[in-house]
Amino acid sequence: MTGSVTLVEVGPRDGLQACKHPIATAARIGLIERLRKAGVKRMEVGSFVSPKHVPRMADTGEVMDAVGSRAEPGDMVLIANARGLEQVIAHGARTIAVFTAASDAFAQKNIGCTIAASLERFAPLVETARAAGVAVRGYISTITDCPYSGEVAPEAVVPVARSLMEMGCGEISLGETLGRATPCRIAAVIEAVAAHVPIEALAAHFHDTYGMGVANVWEAVRLGVRTVDAAVGGLGGCPFAPGATGNVASEDIVYLLHGQGIETGIDLDGLLDAAAYCGDTMGIAPVSRVFKARRG
Amino acid sequence: MTGSVTLVEVGPRDGLQACKHPIATAARIGLIERLRKAGVKRMEVGSFVSPKHVPRMADTGEVMDAVGSRAEPGDMVLIANARGLEQVIAHGARTIAVFTAASDAFAQKNIGCTIAASLERFAPLVETARAAGVAVRGYISTITDCPYSGEVAPEAVVPVARSLMEMGCGEISLGETLGRATPCRIAAVIEAVAAHVPIEALAAHFHDTYGMGVANVWEAVRLGVRTVDAAVGGLGGCPFAPGATGNVASEDIVYLLHGQGIETGIDLDGLLDAAAYCGDTMGIAPVSRVFKARRG
Repeated sequence: MTGSVTLVEVGPRDGLQACKHPIATAARIGLIERLRKAGVKRMEVGSFVSPKHVPRMADTGEVMDAVGSRAEPGDMVLIANARGLEQVIAHGARTIAVFTAASDAFAQKNIGCTIAASLERFAPLVETARAAGVAVRGYISTITDCPYSGEVAPEAVVPVARSLMEMGCGEISLGETLGRATPCRIAAVIEAVAAHVPIEALAAHFHDTYGMGVANVWEAVRLGVRTVDAAVGGLGGCPFAPGATGNVASEDIVYLLHGQGIETGIDLDGLLDAAAYCGDTMGIAPVSRVFKARRG
Repeated sequence: MTGSVTLVEVGPRDGLQACKHPIATAARIGLIERLRKAGVKRMEVGSFVSPKHVPRMADTGEVMDAVGSRAEPGDMVLIANARGLEQVIAHGARTIAVFTAASDAFAQKNIGCTIAASLERFAPLVETARAAGVAVRGYISTITDCPYSGEVAPEAVVPVARSLMEMGCGEISLGETLGRATPCRIAAVIEAVAAHVPIEALAAHFHDTYGMGVANVWEAVRLGVRTVDAAVGGLGGCPFAPGATGNVASEDIVYLLHGQGIETGIDLDGLLDAAAYCGDTMGIAPVSRVFKARRG
């Protein structure tokens, strides 16, 4: 296989948001700078959400100003409401992300409302964002399994993806939150969604809890997905998803893709430097196999 | 995909041989008993090789007698010479394994001779074994990469596989010793070898050093390989291959295969009990993701 895949580095937001200890603003900034230096072009740099619920992201505005998000169209920020959108626009990000689920039980626990209510809430936000020249990604979590309600059918993901596209999201990130699925279930979701949404608009967002992350990313790429979310060092774990460990590690994914002849534009050694930085300055030891093999 | 795959549990030999501290004979026996209880039908229970070089396997005869290898046709023992074969026959194993490489540099370091010399040494052993009703597996290590000479071409693997088959080996285990390959290189080797050797006679023996183990096993199975080597808990690491970490973990592979609708006859919880036993009685903490997710 040839071609290229765009890595969306989610470590600075999805990876750090659940960290149990405080993280210095300077360390967040340093991490983003190292990721840029490694060639990362798209990155989730933070979120404007409740600082009470997610205190690690409270300094996102400061971080964005320091890392020059205003001049980086690849920088993305998660928001939950109109107040967050105002902050994003004030700090000059060109892409926002909104977050819902394919399971109502998960949506209720995670964002405090049903899927339908979340979509109603997002619609005016997306409209305002687009009018301001801000692109929107829609996250759909729990695409195969929900920690509260069990298995999720591919057919439950399709209407959420369609609604997000119809309201103006340019990209849908399919989140396999619990890291339980094997490739055949990933394939079933992608095929179901891609029958209604252009596959170019899909991103794969997988976790490595059961060791299936690399195989699942490869399955998605084999099927034509060309955008993959990953977190440097395998950072992460969802605070609202019991048992979910980190995102697939960016370095494992870059190693896979380069080995498969697929370009990412990212320098693996630079990525490992960024992973090492997490350990050195934030006390978060990288858990990826490639890091252990090369720097362990 | 449907069908079944046979797991060859190599933890009790390949997994434990490089352990830095002594292991009680009773613990080796206990591990094998737990693996049998989990439904494992094929297992590498030990080796008759130089106790000076591999002291952890010095009690293999005692272990075989205790676990009833005489009555278990799926029990396999690694040997290196005629003395080893005598011991195997005395203790009643029905399958032996011999070990060579696709890289001369690796063969020299690991077994002290060239590939050609190893094949010459094995030929009379295989003949004697078969005359005694003992089946033979041939291991080919370093199928894609050698720690001493770099990349190995698929074409270098083919003649070794052919020679082993021609001398009477009924099975060839293709060892990706360093865990560096991504699925396309695994596919290239399997396709090259399967053009000369029936794919039913091939086993996939992969390591997870760079996190590619699960994806590589899945690639092999997709291509038609129906025998997969793995070690409970992800035990292992080759004492003669710098940087190589453990084998792919049996529980990760069983999780993958069951998730893909492929039967193994193995009970995942029983396998996790065996992995836990390694930690509890041998001080070897399981490193597999499935273990961490379920029992961590």
